[in-house]
Amino acid sequence: MIGVYDSGFGGLTVLRRLRERLPERDFLYLGDTGRAPYGGRDSHTILDFAEQCVERLFEEGCRLVVVACNTVSCVALRHLQRRYAGAGSTRRILGVSIPAAEVAVATSAGHIGILATARTVASGTLPIEIAKLGTHRVTQRAAPFLAQIVEEGWEGTEIARLSVARYLEGLEGVDTLLLGCTHYPLLLPAFESATRARILDPAPFVAGRLAEWLARHPSFDASGSGALRVLSTGDPSVFRAHAPRFLGEDVPEVGHVAEEAGRLAHRATVQITTGQVLR
Amino acid sequence: MIGVYDSGFGGLTVLRRLRERLPERDFLYLGDTGRAPYGGRDSHTILDFAEQCVERLFEEGCRLVVVACNTVSCVALRHLQRRYAGAGSTRRILGVSIPAAEVAVATSAGHIGILATARTVASGTLPIEIAKLGTHRVTQRAAPFLAQIVEEGWEGTEIARLSVARYLEGLEGVDTLLLGCTHYPLLLPAFESATRARILDPAPFVAGRLAEWLARHPSFDASGSGALRVLSTGDPSVFRAHAPRFLGEDVPEVGHVAEEAGRLAHRATVQITTGQVLR
Repeated sequence: MIGVYDSGFGGLTVLRRLRERLPERDFLYLGDTGRAPYGGRDSHTILDFAEQCVERLFEEGCRLVVVACNTVSCVALRHLQRRYAGAGSTRRILGVSIPAAEVAVATSAGHIGILATARTVASGTLPIEIAKLGTHRVTQRAAPFLAQIVEEGWEGTEIARLSVARYLEGLEGVDTLLLGCTHYPLLLPAFESATRARILDPAPFVAGRLAEWLARHPSFDASGSGALRVLSTGDPSVFRAHAPRFLGEDVPEVGHVAEEAGRLAHRATVQITTGQVLR
Repeated sequence: MIGVYDSGFGGLTVLRRLRERLPERDFLYLGDTGRAPYGGRDSHTILDFAEQCVERLFEEGCRLVVVACNTVSCVALRHLQRRYAGAGSTRRILGVSIPAAEVAVATSAGHIGILATARTVASGTLPIEIAKLGTHRVTQRAAPFLAQIVEEGWEGTEIARLSVARYLEGLEGVDTLLLGCTHYPLLLPAFESATRARILDPAPFVAGRLAEWLARHPSFDASGSGALRVLSTGDPSVFRAHAPRFLGEDVPEVGHVAEEAGRLAHRATVQITTGQVLR
């Protein structure tokens, strides 16, 4: 069972490609929807949340965790790897930023554009990884509310098309546009109407890299029955309602986990707080 | 010196009305821009942040703090009042939700619409306060990215007009639309083009209520010279660049405060984290 961790729903676009590429593997998806979006949060909060989420996935029995979220991959991946999956460990944590950089360099004729969250852009991690692989010019821009548009289910609206076009101002010269946030594949029609650049969703490439890695490291996961389990820190019913847009299929029952004394614990019910909160 | 606390820039639209109404008072504004937006956060995180912010304002010498943020007022105000400004205390904390409910009831012919953050709507505090004052029907809707549109400086765009119109779907029957987030006054033209309802920014009424309160409680603040100080948890240069759109005038030098061991401490420089974060 491979763990897939994301800040919310967006990582389901990655999970979709992983399940297509590895149909016989079992997956456990953990979406931190109760605390999303991560994009505007400070780095140390992201590290705290990421620790809780990967710990939950390890406790569920995963030995391999894929961090599907670009923000977490760009900010916290090395910390997570050092803390939980150092040399000699029987656990591994893989991210999406290095595969994304690889496929961008392999695709681009010389000028790569990136749209991503504010935190991903501020981290500079994608340009750093790209610079290790070639001499491509990189222009990146924070597009903080494209993910929000998708969360609202507005990806097919004129609002989406206008917003994408606006964020692409200043990126006219790029030949390849890397979608640096897992929500953006749902905005593909809006991107296609706004730019002639090649639009690059790294998720299929991430899936290919994972398949190669599993072939080289058979001890970290075994073939299963193609099962899928889902955990969410937000309301499970909201998760199930939104998930098909991202995953391309319905999700099974969604388990609820919530922060309790610094870790994510299973919860039978969702706590809804109304009115003034006293403590 | 009156403290004004907000999650970010939005409270500057309230400060603007406070300074118009009380031009001789000194104000200290604290914008928690480094951790905004609050609207999607869980209640206990909001309580934590609110404690740190009002403690900072008290330490700066304020004895009266106005919570300008609707989300904090709807979720955390009673907690803050109990903790810092109980009976016999020489400190007071006032919010915006009760004045907003009062002016909505006084204005509406019977059906009040509310747009606000997800947390404000989920709290139910505005409908609860309105129900204490009359028998008005209330229809509220979370409009999570209107604040984001304003943060981006896109309030004058077609994106803003389309988004406002979309959030107003289902609110056709309201006669009065209460702007339940301090960012929304910047979207007034978009609101005016989308609805015939009376659009109600509660900020001028909040200012009037504060003036009355000060007249009744002269010991909590004294007249000054109309001075303004500003503190921000985010980048002070970003704050100064954005503030005039909200306040209607330039702000003086902005001090930087940041979380340190559970409190907001003054910081000389803004820490910018790039690349992977290790700890």
